[in-house]
Amino acid sequence: MSDTAPLDGSDCGLFESAMVLLGRRWAGLVVRALLPGPLRFADLRRSIPGITDAMLSARLRELCAAGVAVRTVTDSRPVQVSYTLTDAGRDLAPVLDQVELFAQRHPLVVRGIGG
Amino acid sequence: MSDTAPLDGSDCGLFESAMVLLGRRWAGLVVRALLPGPLRFADLRRSIPGITDAMLSARLRELCAAGVAVRTVTDSRPVQVSYTLTDAGRDLAPVLDQVELFAQRHPLVVRGIGG
Repeated sequence: MSDTAPLDGSDCGLFESAMVLLGRRWAGLVVRALLPGPLRFADLRRSIPGITDAMLSARLRELCAAGVAVRTVTDSRPVQVSYTLTDAGRDLAPVLDQVELFAQRHPLVVRGIGG
Repeated sequence: MSDTAPLDGSDCGLFESAMVLLGRRWAGLVVRALLPGPLRFADLRRSIPGITDAMLSARLRELCAAGVAVRTVTDSRPVQVSYTLTDAGRDLAPVLDQVELFAQRHPLVVRGIGG
């Protein structure tokens, strides 16, 4: 059923931190949107219907601080700011896949969590 | 890189709810401990070094409320209370596996998330 060794106490915080990162509003969608390649802020925003500038900025700051994405400023006029996933960010793809599969398979369970 | 369709806005909340459930302290370890089969409260507690009675009770209440686990009371003297994963709970195994692989591969990234 499970092909990795169970976590011991020392790994426990790492596991939860990873879940907390992705549990923040829109975080999963931002990572997902960047999987095909780098995007400028405006293009990233357009690819995530409903997200606000403020929310996208906040998530990008956190993802960059965590080492999941990097912010690149191109020395042009006007200056262009784009975001790229790091290797670690790309390695989140299988996590996103599994969480999405679970949410699709068990929508009622997932909906009940907030309550 | 990713074999599921991207989430649209309507699925977004489901994804985040699933992450929030597993992001709670000890939640992943409680699900992991129940994967091999039902356990009584005391045995479950022994299998998760460091967890307190209060924390284990709180996580079990949430997991049961979410439909991830069920609480069974055996009509014996003394009464025995045990916890079993539902089908949905068992389907969390691949999610746990992928998050753990990520956390093991990128410990520095995951450690940085709290900051």
